[in-house]
Amino acid sequence: MTSQTLEVIKTTTHKPKPDPEALGFGKYFTDHMLLIDYHSDKGWYHPRIVPYEPLTLDPAAMVFHYGQTVFEGLKAYKDHDENVRLFRPEENMKRLNRSNERLSIPTLDEKETLSYIKELVRLEKDWIPTAAGKSLYIRPFVINTEASLSVAPSKTYTFLVILSPVGSYYSEGIDPVSIFVEDFYTRAAPGGTGYAKTAGNYSAAYKAQERAVEHQRSQVLWLDGLEKKYVEEVGSMNVFFKIDGEIHTPEINGTILEGVTRKSVIELLRSWDLPVHERRIAMDDLIQAHQNGTLEEAFGTGTAAVISPIGILDYKGTEYTINNNKTGDISNRLHNAITGIQTGRLEDPFGWTTVL
Amino acid sequence: MTSQTLEVIKTTTHKPKPDPEALGFGKYFTDHMLLIDYHSDKGWYHPRIVPYEPLTLDPAAMVFHYGQTVFEGLKAYKDHDENVRLFRPEENMKRLNRSNERLSIPTLDEKETLSYIKELVRLEKDWIPTAAGKSLYIRPFVINTEASLSVAPSKTYTFLVILSPVGSYYSEGIDPVSIFVEDFYTRAAPGGTGYAKTAGNYSAAYKAQERAVEHQRSQVLWLDGLEKKYVEEVGSMNVFFKIDGEIHTPEINGTILEGVTRKSVIELLRSWDLPVHERRIAMDDLIQAHQNGTLEEAFGTGTAAVISPIGILDYKGTEYTINNNKTGDISNRLHNAITGIQTGRLEDPFGWTTVL
Ligand SMILES: Cc1ncc(COP(=O)(O)O)c(C=O)c1O
Ligand SMILES: Cc1ncc(COP(=O)(O)O)c(C=O)c1O
Repeated sequence: MTSQTLEVIKTTTHKPKPDPEALGFGKYFTDHMLLIDYHSDKGWYHPRIVPYEPLTLDPAAMVFHYGQTVFEGLKAYKDHDENVRLFRPEENMKRLNRSNERLSIPTLDEKETLSYIKELVRLEKDWIPTAAGKSLYIRPFVINTEASLSVAPSKTYTFLVILSPVGSYYSEGIDPVSIFVEDFYTRAAPGGTGYAKTAGNYSAAYKAQERAVEHQRSQVLWLDGLEKKYVEEVGSMNVFFKIDGEIHTPEINGTILEGVTRKSVIELLRSWDLPVHERRIAMDDLIQAHQNGTLEEAFGTGTAAVISPIGILDYKGTEYTINNNKTGDISNRLHNAITGIQTGRLEDPFGWTTVL
Repeated sequence: MTSQTLEVIKTTTHKPKPDPEALGFGKYFTDHMLLIDYHSDKGWYHPRIVPYEPLTLDPAAMVFHYGQTVFEGLKAYKDHDENVRLFRPEENMKRLNRSNERLSIPTLDEKETLSYIKELVRLEKDWIPTAAGKSLYIRPFVINTEASLSVAPSKTYTFLVILSPVGSYYSEGIDPVSIFVEDFYTRAAPGGTGYAKTAGNYSAAYKAQERAVEHQRSQVLWLDGLEKKYVEEVGSMNVFFKIDGEIHTPEINGTILEGVTRKSVIELLRSWDLPVHERRIAMDDLIQAHQNGTLEEAFGTGTAAVISPIGILDYKGTEYTINNNKTGDISNRLHNAITGIQTGRLEDPFGWTTVL
């Protein structure tokens, strides 16, 4: 992608802003969207911001049949001085390209693409909710668009970015969730697509989520696809455990998603001189630690909820309660530190913030 | 789905028919398509045949983000008396629902849906090519359409059927292909989506296909996701081996697709009193048989090519030639029998054919 001029076509009909108390997640969208097209003869071309509008696609468009689809998720926050802040957006651009690579989608120029995303967010800055816990969710994604049923990478793609004002993930504070440890369905196996943010990883997980709900649990803890012995992720979050004063999280091995929140949590904990071990974690060792009384805390990390404490693990019919089903100190401290940096409430000693 | 009246809106502008010699696969589409909508409040509703036209979807439609997509593939043939024939379409309807179930998509009424598909094919019967090896490819598929970014099953879906006149898969006769045995990438693992026809299984396989092509091989032989020891499928086909006079094919175990051609091949072979073993087949045992001189034939089976002989296996850097890289007797006999029944050239003792 050679440097190109961004075309901007502004809407003449602005939508009413939704009630900030009833935002939910990904239900409302702003007035504009960003598009960049790809053709195998031209590369990525024609970056443009246009009014938010439906897409028109041939029913044979490959996205409906052999979807090469990847996406990202990050947030824009408004601080007390009305500055717009992004949290480590370069990391999302890098991961977008790792996902592209796995799905045989041509990679995008990360810097240039990010500069267009910033333009879009600037244009829509009045849509960023200001109340605590609320933000503007940014959803970049790629779809394959060639109208052909041959099973082969598409010759054409479109990269899009849409924006959605979203509420706080939790109604009040950060309450612990109860988790069903999934020992039948598999999220990802070595040599598969686990490290990519691609549609198939999410829709294939709904059966497991149904099973968790049947067991009155709100989310799934995934085990490894090979032996169903080692912990991988929780729902759409990375997972951490505090055992005997030290923090443990599954290592990056090709089957789990490399979360931006995960990375930030590790860096924060280390800056606080807390030992963090990225390693293979056996479910049996967690149970052992629980029995010894050394499993002190567990929590998930992700853009949507930032930190989500785990109060209960339901594994093979037994319920294991962690930290009396209360939010732990580390969870609280991390949540406060990360949301503080994201929203400009706290200093950012790491240089994680981009102010627009 | 309660029995509903099919609405039919005919086009006023017929497209020119493509040159039968230049059809390719899935490049041209007929004048009409079939649609049925789903809403969680109503079930499947409003079956209709309408002119083939683009789909209009919100950029937040779930199919672009967390695609719950499944599809089918079958063919319509025209016999010498201009009768239109379908080959075991009930099997495709059953498999469609198995795929739906895995992807948390509401199932369709198989009989009723098939009756609408027959209506569509009847309406488009002038599009069915008559030359040997050519046919009308039928592509039923489902997409999730709710405009929401929450990671949960969609409340709305559309089922569609489009039709494409297709050429013979092989330019002349059935020539053997050379196959790269994939020992890094994984198609499917237990607890995953291997048995479903869903987008993610296909787009995730492109990296492996690229690798095969780098090794000058035309397709991939997949090994099991757990140990990379056992044979699963070849490209988008099921796979068979003739060893010492008997036929072996991987058993249905949740990770491979249950092919309609596979099923028909097994039934045909048994009707010829040839022993068929559905079992776990170790790659090492195939190599052993090759060294003993008892690996007599290998072939893939699928709707697109019917029977595709395997001439060369490229495994861990060694090339294993099968049957002197020639099409074997069993491959020829099966190809002749199945295409004969499909096109009405031969008797159909099994009742596999539906004449419209
Ligand atoms: C499967 C999965 N794991 C982990 C995460 C957490 O990643 P991040 O912290 O970048 O949001 C996400 C969500 O983005 C995810 O979808
Ligand atoms: C992965 C896969 N395996 C096997 C097959 C063969 O199935 P069938 O014989 O029903 O065409 C197909 C194609 O349909 C397929 O996509």
